[in-house]
Amino acid sequence: MQRYFINSTQVHNNIITIINSDVHHIKNVMRMKIDDEIIVCDELENVYLGKIITISNEEVKVEIVKNIDAKSELPINVTIAHGLVRREKTEEVIRRLAELGCYEYQPIIMNRSIVKVVNDKSERQNKIIKEACEQSQRNRLMILSPVIDLKKLIARKDEFSLCLYADFNPNVAHLKPLLQKFTGKNILVVIGPEGGFSIEEVTALDKAGFIPITLGKRVLRTETAPLYVMSVIGYEFEKFSL
Amino acid sequence: MQRYFINSTQVHNNIITIINSDVHHIKNVMRMKIDDEIIVCDELENVYLGKIITISNEEVKVEIVKNIDAKSELPINVTIAHGLVRREKTEEVIRRLAELGCYEYQPIIMNRSIVKVVNDKSERQNKIIKEACEQSQRNRLMILSPVIDLKKLIARKDEFSLCLYADFNPNVAHLKPLLQKFTGKNILVVIGPEGGFSIEEVTALDKAGFIPITLGKRVLRTETAPLYVMSVIGYEFEKFSL
Repeated sequence: MQRYFINSTQVHNNIITIINSDVHHIKNVMRMKIDDEIIVCDELENVYLGKIITISNEEVKVEIVKNIDAKSELPINVTIAHGLVRREKTEEVIRRLAELGCYEYQPIIMNRSIVKVVNDKSERQNKIIKEACEQSQRNRLMILSPVIDLKKLIARKDEFSLCLYADFNPNVAHLKPLLQKFTGKNILVVIGPEGGFSIEEVTALDKAGFIPITLGKRVLRTETAPLYVMSVIGYEFEKFSL
Repeated sequence: MQRYFINSTQVHNNIITIINSDVHHIKNVMRMKIDDEIIVCDELENVYLGKIITISNEEVKVEIVKNIDAKSELPINVTIAHGLVRREKTEEVIRRLAELGCYEYQPIIMNRSIVKVVNDKSERQNKIIKEACEQSQRNRLMILSPVIDLKKLIARKDEFSLCLYADFNPNVAHLKPLLQKFTGKNILVVIGPEGGFSIEEVTALDKAGFIPITLGKRVLRTETAPLYVMSVIGYEFEKFSL
């Protein structure tokens, strides 16, 4: 069933008012009619089964049929901080991270980033994230944070109970023992750009207490490393009945 | 250091003869000279540090300096059988699977594959695999097998000690308990095309004893699922000193 993401302020007295581009999507792309059912999710992770009651050019009103207890989110929040890479690579990475359950994507200006000019692509990127979260049936949208530098990222350290960075050197700690003893809620993993971290960056990360980790014995590209990290963290923490 | 893949028949009396496109790569792309060092790997997983002794238009002769005991391969062989998908998606998947340590990529014609015509793209695809294996510093090339149908894949069953298929239903077994009790050498994981498996295909897989598994609570695209599977299997089995 088609899934739409709204803000909780759009819910009043059992009625959800859908606005903006989702109206066009419901009306013209999906060609839905009165009484058709959709899934609506808000930022508080409420998930509603709703029935369309009115459709106009400006808004679609949806009556809540029931709350759905569909836990499709991971029990922990994973922030991937990623050295700025080219546009196409960024788009592929955010699409797949959104599918894999990532909480936040934090792009970082780094010394060896090939991309030096920061153009705001957040509108386009947020559209990709929205589509990926809908398609993968998530209950919330992955957060796309504005580009910052490494110093500002390090200043965010206290938000996380575990701060890691991916090292080329295979003789550092592997992720598994660190994840298996982790009992917190928020993990930050920093992944370098194409050229890796500079020596100054590694020194700054080490000094701030970030733990270097290896992602395995093969050298992963900068656009593959985030997918490996997000896959294995999901695998380690996801709860299953079987 | 630059890495080249050869056949073990190219090694005689401590001298390796490099031929074909690698000659062009050494001579014109890398612009290497006599006495430059390279890494050479053969299909038996021998890894040599070699020194260039002659360069002509047809061949490069390399003297073996020493054998390197660089184990960059996983201790198990993972075959990903994947419903045929579009060319660009296939190329992305094989590139990332090669980086992540996959042993074999086996494309399968399936009922719901959008791609119906099988054009032989193996030359181009093998080039992508070669580049990815060199760049990620693997000791062997991922095998790209010719396209077969599901019946023929099921007939290969005895080659594997564990045969799995990725199911949309989250109420089937998760990978983790299956992997954690696995003691064999060869794992096969079947992943459907964009439209998933048909009912007939699921019935055939069940009948043949393939185990349905969930890849998590989010629905992964057909090109994301192989990367998740390969990442978590690598994570589960890779041996680290730390």
